[in-house]
Amino acid sequence: MYYLGIDLGGTNIAAGILDENLKMVIKGSVPTGKEREYPEIIKDMAEHSMKLIEEAGLTVEDIKYIGIGSPGVCDRENGILLYANNIGFNNVPMASEMQKYITLPIYIDNDANCAALGESVSGAARDVSDSITITLGTGVGGGIVMNKQIFLGFNGMAGEIGHISIVLDGEECTCGKRGCWEAYASATALIRQTKKAAEENPDSEINKLVNRNLDLINAKTAFDAMRLNDEVGTKVVDQYIRYVAVGIANLIVTLQPEKVVIGGGISKEGETLLKPLRKKVNDNLYYKKDDVPQAQIVAAEIGNDAGIVGAAMLGMQGKI
Amino acid sequence: MYYLGIDLGGTNIAAGILDENLKMVIKGSVPTGKEREYPEIIKDMAEHSMKLIEEAGLTVEDIKYIGIGSPGVCDRENGILLYANNIGFNNVPMASEMQKYITLPIYIDNDANCAALGESVSGAARDVSDSITITLGTGVGGGIVMNKQIFLGFNGMAGEIGHISIVLDGEECTCGKRGCWEAYASATALIRQTKKAAEENPDSEINKLVNRNLDLINAKTAFDAMRLNDEVGTKVVDQYIRYVAVGIANLIVTLQPEKVVIGGGISKEGETLLKPLRKKVNDNLYYKKDDVPQAQIVAAEIGNDAGIVGAAMLGMQGKI
Repeated sequence: MYYLGIDLGGTNIAAGILDENLKMVIKGSVPTGKEREYPEIIKDMAEHSMKLIEEAGLTVEDIKYIGIGSPGVCDRENGILLYANNIGFNNVPMASEMQKYITLPIYIDNDANCAALGESVSGAARDVSDSITITLGTGVGGGIVMNKQIFLGFNGMAGEIGHISIVLDGEECTCGKRGCWEAYASATALIRQTKKAAEENPDSEINKLVNRNLDLINAKTAFDAMRLNDEVGTKVVDQYIRYVAVGIANLIVTLQPEKVVIGGGISKEGETLLKPLRKKVNDNLYYKKDDVPQAQIVAAEIGNDAGIVGAAMLGMQGKI
Repeated sequence: MYYLGIDLGGTNIAAGILDENLKMVIKGSVPTGKEREYPEIIKDMAEHSMKLIEEAGLTVEDIKYIGIGSPGVCDRENGILLYANNIGFNNVPMASEMQKYITLPIYIDNDANCAALGESVSGAARDVSDSITITLGTGVGGGIVMNKQIFLGFNGMAGEIGHISIVLDGEECTCGKRGCWEAYASATALIRQTKKAAEENPDSEINKLVNRNLDLINAKTAFDAMRLNDEVGTKVVDQYIRYVAVGIANLIVTLQPEKVVIGGGISKEGETLLKPLRKKVNDNLYYKKDDVPQAQIVAAEIGNDAGIVGAAMLGMQGKI
């Protein structure tokens, strides 16, 4: 038996098929074309799925179900995508629309939850039962996994950890609140922090790296400047990692997971990010004696494919 | 069969016996005398337990086990109290020491966890499976209950929610960190905030209520001034409730419990506290549409006895 997972993103519809050993036998993606109406997008999702099934030398009968990871808020029971700002979906009957083309069970969940489940099932957290996966990307996404299951909370909305408040009356967040972790620890926030430092320090390596065109600053620029021993870049990175650390420490103090997995674009910095992060998280923990083990902080292993893998596992929730 | 629960506090050793319907058949307390060595204190706990058993007309054979709720950090498996600052206990073999006097199974856990379990089993959260109980007292204590069980995390330390950071580089906390929720939302913090406002506004009702002796300010003073329509008192209460709200919103965004139960001394303000608190929590939530239900915020029902009730339920964990 095989499992098909779809990671619906603002840019691409990425999909893949996993075998019973959770090995990906085929994967591929097509553009989302998010400016289109939902029936067209979902038709493409179904056609792309059929194409992958065929290319893998399989038939629909070989596939147990299709799992879909989507940005936004889902009604899992009824397969409805309630609200997904960045693809303009509102109350979209995802499952029934897909089933117009493929008669398979359809499971849907939030994309960050799927990524967390993917890392838990076959990635960096495969050896522990409780983990939290945090993606430092355009926003700060998160998924809480307990006993190898996505933790949903009573209303299905748990794990929106990008929107815990870490700075009272702080920076404005895209969600409308102030001081959210996402407004300090996302790649978007790091770019803003880097730009501000470059404006205030026109002679820094940051400015040189982008030929003084601050619009070219990305989430890597401050790290690159730091690698050139630039004081300004080093300061930006240090402060940014501190922001990341405060949020992680809050999650650890509350939930004490065995592993915290860091994914998203910024996680590509690897130990340059993780080594100081571990120290700063530890500085923010309550009760740190040697007789109590603490959460390990590790890099995501599946990375970009975690959303597909997790989506493909959605139908197994409660059965692992 | 009966269950005996002990709530070991800095001032009193409170204990009670519950019957099979979780009804308390007897309770009583003796002073802790915390300046004494632990063997003497534990001897008193055992003797007080024996006295209650006798007074209830029971024998040791009628008691299934003894549960102990204690401040600090516990090693549940070995019945050891690893560390409890406010009673000066360090690596105290609580279970084996008790068993010198009473040959019954002994269970131990953190006192805030016991209070949360008590509210979950027979208090304000008895009708839901997932709840968080927060005690606004000398500190901010908390216990997370999932599926009617205390949620421990992989190392047994979960739920230390008084030490989530809500203000980056904020007020110093007794734990040594800065900006902890406890440093803003505890009764101790409210007293500090009230004193500061009184110093800055010598003509406020706060100053009159304590005959200008600011050392007499307690956690009720600002609320009392507010009830006299004092502007300064109203401002202090409003800001204090905002601090409480930010931490609760963080917990809801992360865990989405069905109920948040507010206990501790300050909860005696009832709806004066809860009504504005609900509004301010709602202001801090992510995604608030009518199609998704949100956590109810309610007052603790068992109050002071919750620690005894929860302790008496410790041996039932996993069996409820």
